[in-house]
Amino acid sequence: MSPSQTSVYALSFIVVVAAFLFAWYLYFWVKKHKTENERIREVADFIKSGANTFIRKEYKILAIFAGIAAIIILVLLPEPIWQTDNILSNVSMAVAYIFGTVLSAVAGKMGIVVATLSNSRAAEATKKGIKPAFMIGFRGGAVMGLAVVGFCLFGVAAVLLIFGDASILLGFSFGASSLALFAKAGGGIFTKTADVSADLTGKVELGIPEDDPRNPAVIADNVGDNVGDVAGMGADLFDSNVASMAAAIVIAQALDSNGSFINQAMVLVYAAIGLFASILGIATGRIGKHGSPSRALNSSTYVTTGIYLVLTAIATYLFDGFEWRIWGASVVGLLVGTIIGITTDYFTDDTKPIVRRVAAASKSGPAFTILSGISYGFISSFPSMIGIAISALAAYKLCDPLGEGYAMFGIAMSAVGMLSIVGMIISNDAYGPIVDNARGLAEMGGLGEDAIKIADELDSAGNTVKAVTKGFAISAAGLTVISLLGAYMSEVNATLKELGREIITGFDVMNPNVFFGILIGAAIPAVFSAMLMLGVDKNAQRMVAEIHRQFDEIDGLREGKPGVKPEYNKCIDIATSGALRELIPAGLMAIIVTIIVGFVGGVSAIGGYLLGNIISGLLIATFMSNSGGLWDNSKKYIEAGNEGGKGSDAHKAAVVGDTVGDPFKDTAGPSINTQITVVSLVASLLSALFASYSILG
Amino acid sequence: MSPSQTSVYALSFIVVVAAFLFAWYLYFWVKKHKTENERIREVADFIKSGANTFIRKEYKILAIFAGIAAIIILVLLPEPIWQTDNILSNVSMAVAYIFGTVLSAVAGKMGIVVATLSNSRAAEATKKGIKPAFMIGFRGGAVMGLAVVGFCLFGVAAVLLIFGDASILLGFSFGASSLALFAKAGGGIFTKTADVSADLTGKVELGIPEDDPRNPAVIADNVGDNVGDVAGMGADLFDSNVASMAAAIVIAQALDSNGSFINQAMVLVYAAIGLFASILGIATGRIGKHGSPSRALNSSTYVTTGIYLVLTAIATYLFDGFEWRIWGASVVGLLVGTIIGITTDYFTDDTKPIVRRVAAASKSGPAFTILSGISYGFISSFPSMIGIAISALAAYKLCDPLGEGYAMFGIAMSAVGMLSIVGMIISNDAYGPIVDNARGLAEMGGLGEDAIKIADELDSAGNTVKAVTKGFAISAAGLTVISLLGAYMSEVNATLKELGREIITGFDVMNPNVFFGILIGAAIPAVFSAMLMLGVDKNAQRMVAEIHRQFDEIDGLREGKPGVKPEYNKCIDIATSGALRELIPAGLMAIIVTIIVGFVGGVSAIGGYLLGNIISGLLIATFMSNSGGLWDNSKKYIEAGNEGGKGSDAHKAAVVGDTVGDPFKDTAGPSINTQITVVSLVASLLSALFASYSILG
Repeated sequence: MSPSQTSVYALSFIVVVAAFLFAWYLYFWVKKHKTENERIREVADFIKSGANTFIRKEYKILAIFAGIAAIIILVLLPEPIWQTDNILSNVSMAVAYIFGTVLSAVAGKMGIVVATLSNSRAAEATKKGIKPAFMIGFRGGAVMGLAVVGFCLFGVAAVLLIFGDASILLGFSFGASSLALFAKAGGGIFTKTADVSADLTGKVELGIPEDDPRNPAVIADNVGDNVGDVAGMGADLFDSNVASMAAAIVIAQALDSNGSFINQAMVLVYAAIGLFASILGIATGRIGKHGSPSRALNSSTYVTTGIYLVLTAIATYLFDGFEWRIWGASVVGLLVGTIIGITTDYFTDDTKPIVRRVAAASKSGPAFTILSGISYGFISSFPSMIGIAISALAAYKLCDPLGEGYAMFGIAMSAVGMLSIVGMIISNDAYGPIVDNARGLAEMGGLGEDAIKIADELDSAGNTVKAVTKGFAISAAGLTVISLLGAYMSEVNATLKELGREIITGFDVMNPNVFFGILIGAAIPAVFSAMLMLGVDKNAQRMVAEIHRQFDEIDGLREGKPGVKPEYNKCIDIATSGALRELIPAGLMAIIVTIIVGFVGGVSAIGGYLLGNIISGLLIATFMSNSGGLWDNSKKYIEAGNEGGKGSDAHKAAVVGDTVGDPFKDTAGPSINTQITVVSLVASLLSALFASYSILG
Repeated sequence: MSPSQTSVYALSFIVVVAAFLFAWYLYFWVKKHKTENERIREVADFIKSGANTFIRKEYKILAIFAGIAAIIILVLLPEPIWQTDNILSNVSMAVAYIFGTVLSAVAGKMGIVVATLSNSRAAEATKKGIKPAFMIGFRGGAVMGLAVVGFCLFGVAAVLLIFGDASILLGFSFGASSLALFAKAGGGIFTKTADVSADLTGKVELGIPEDDPRNPAVIADNVGDNVGDVAGMGADLFDSNVASMAAAIVIAQALDSNGSFINQAMVLVYAAIGLFASILGIATGRIGKHGSPSRALNSSTYVTTGIYLVLTAIATYLFDGFEWRIWGASVVGLLVGTIIGITTDYFTDDTKPIVRRVAAASKSGPAFTILSGISYGFISSFPSMIGIAISALAAYKLCDPLGEGYAMFGIAMSAVGMLSIVGMIISNDAYGPIVDNARGLAEMGGLGEDAIKIADELDSAGNTVKAVTKGFAISAAGLTVISLLGAYMSEVNATLKELGREIITGFDVMNPNVFFGILIGAAIPAVFSAMLMLGVDKNAQRMVAEIHRQFDEIDGLREGKPGVKPEYNKCIDIATSGALRELIPAGLMAIIVTIIVGFVGGVSAIGGYLLGNIISGLLIATFMSNSGGLWDNSKKYIEAGNEGGKGSDAHKAAVVGDTVGDPFKDTAGPSINTQITVVSLVASLLSALFASYSILG
């Protein structure tokens, strides 16, 4: 049988509603746990209000940005308002854009709400054992995961249903991405400013433990986990997910040009199955009384993957026009994503040799920590690049026999496949900052050693999972932007046909315009990440100075006199204002350079530019995420009593590595994903303008 | 008039002879200065014998490698011996290959001879003032510069004259490159092992000055300057220079297919003029009694550039068939090279803001030194990438109207133009390690503060010039490999024509094989540089342990009791054996991956692979060279009494930055040039095999 449009949309919306209902249930399940410890409740309120203040201020700035962007879109896209005879398209595009930004913002805000609710409850539950504490962290994260993916499928299906035109979907996707770009950058700078400053002054200078309440930056650090790792990361994966679906649907619509809907149906059905599989995976998430939290997280992921594979196979079998080759491409994506996750784990897990080697190198001083970490980070990019290369090649070769255009559709579906389990991935990822916060709260609430040990175990599982999901997210973004390159080309050709000019069949690297674009595009991720890191660097220097001031001026703070409290808010303010100041320039730089290259070199230069951007973006993002992860874990490995343990010279060197790694892995590295997506979407949206007005093209 | 083949070859050989005679004169001029200080003579002998021992051992290993490679070439290239009807081509190719390795090795060895002769004489001359000391350093370096460029022009002209076939020239170039790859890697690992270990144990742990004779690694450090910065760098620039000429001549010969010689003549004449201009530039190199050494070095470079521009213009005017557009392309290359040099200077000079900002960041600890240095290093790659992009685009557009194939010839000539003044560049670059050594010898010989101050001034000029020439060398390599990509395509098409298959017109990034190649190629420079850095890392840890052992076990060494000497040789041995062990794997990895990609994905995958390799190679090489340079100079800036001066926390942090930067700028960064050249040449040489036997191609 062949699925009707109505049934496909109905299926999508039913799954979305199921996801929301389930998230609702989990939210109230978490909420009904109470926090009784006075101190925990007080600190948790601090964190909540700090996070909300930052998000409110950030969204205010982003609303202005989005408003300006919407006006520009209204005037220029898809065609300049003075040329078009269909002004409604421009309105639709602007509306879709705003819709994208709003959904992305709401997803981020929901993450903050549930994370700041779960952290104190998970902390309190550590007193009762690992099982209840884990479940609160896990289900809190799941609310976020379900919400993000639910919004994504809802938004994509709604835009497609209402406007019917896949190009408008690019506007929606651009809305999601542009918000994610700045939310990720802002949150990333906030969280690492606080983290780095807290570590440097607390651990290194004073030798007090992490999360010690005397440290003025400790609350800011916990706020940062929420605004950076929950809200920022949620916006990031929302963006990747939307972009992968948008790219697939743009290509599918070109293939469905005979009025059919089958390829678009396939994208929606697969995505709906992915969300449904995540619901089941989350529902079955369990941990034994003394079970291992990382095993529990992984087994939910495997359940989700298995259900996805089986159900998509059934759908492909049932529905006429669902091609097995495309199913194969989506499976390849999922498998390669998993394999990349495993290799990432090899480079960043402290039970494996690499982390231990970096820990051993730290005995010779911080320079060796840095050198070995950078080197292994570089090497770790190799398997990821090979994995992405192979999955792109395999998807292409698998689907190429289906006809013209299907090869690129295969790559797009391979990205969709890789991202199908993203609901599960986000759940696991959001679990990390929740239990990280819970650990801090347990320490500050004085819950005792046993509780802290449990919190530590939960936290450590969060860290391992985080490294793996990051590898996964980067590769998914890689495949997505490859298909966005395909989407870009089909947009360009649509314009060229309209202009009566020859269409292009590709981007030849021997074409000097393409080559010019490649070189410039390749430099952008480096410059972009450098700007973010310098933001953290400058900001952290200000915060370190403030912490020093407090220790010098507040009597009894250093010694921990009872009743003496640091001025937590000052540190939160510094992190906030710094992050807001550094938020815009890097992202704007990437967008502006794209526009300049387009108007100078034309559509072929932009083709090259996107390619260069993708290649160097993948390389740098993998390098930074993995180096950061392995420094973090080699520090933890030393703190667990190896290579001299806490306080040794090796530990001091490892802390330097971790401090460098923090902005690598949590600010710059993961923002690059979003940067390449945004640039690809800008290129696709402006392709008609570049085709018409360019100096050399 | 039109230049005859005979007259072009005659001109080339006459200039070569003039260069050799002038080098000969300079060598004896340096030699006639005497060293009277007993201690200096003793240490200089140590350095000389250490350097010669290393070079001898290194060349032994490389001779085995070259022998095996020559046999493989004999069997396989240009066509497998069992398929060819012209076995003489295979013999020619193998002979040209060996000729290339031998010339490269001899150039390196000559560098060592003259550098280890000049260092002690320059040291001794510091007693007499800056003028004589500068002239010895400068003229010593000039011997190396003239020899390298003389050998290059001689080799290229001889191979072309004897074999007449430009493809054989690729074999010659591959010989030069493969030797350079390993010489650069081996020398780079040696020098930084010694430098890093000497700094860490001496400056950081014991607080004794650089070059203090108590430090067991101090001689190894000075030996390293010679084997890494003189011999390695000489081999590197010999390689770039040969490769740029080879690429230009391969393309020129395809353009001259009607039996003409005009375009090949243009390459040779321009190169001969470049060498002649360098002779004049060196001959006019002067410094006033209290003059600035960096001004003197720069003014010789300007003289050379000016003479080159005027004489090539005259030649273009005089000779029929020498096109002004091609002259223009070569001028563009030279100008862009100079501009890139100036921007490099902006990022690495301690009178400019960037170095000072990194120095200021060091006050907050080593993590900030590293973060800011990496960030500015990333940013510094942007102007270089833009510069290369613009010069490639300009050369292409300038020469494209001349007819098919001329666009790529324009890019090749732009690289030749950039490298035309390479004789001068090498002179200035070799000046660096000579005066660096001289400073060490002045310290160890106890020549007193005034002499050391002069030596310091000479050394500091060497450092500035070095950063600039490195930027220059990287961009030249960039343009060269772009033209090698063109050369690769013309080799591929020659084969495809022979096989009766359709020729290719370019490498389309939407072709999955090309894309696959791009992703893998982009990862190689990262992995390659990581392997070299890990080599330094491991090796330095061994040497640090040995130094600690000596300080613990040799009575009175730490206190500097008269007559107590460290065991310098043990450190030299560790550096040597480690470098020899780590020398081969990285280079071999790059070559083997190239071959695998070729046999898997065929000629189009290799096209993409080369592109990815070039792009990420340029990015990473620039980043590493500039980060390293700016860390070095911000350390020096602090040592000059800023931000707390020597011994402050900022200084300790800056030393960590410098230690990380050492292998960045002197091992990994500059080796990437050679890596991309070697890979491009391997691809061109094996193109026929890839076209015939590949799984997916």
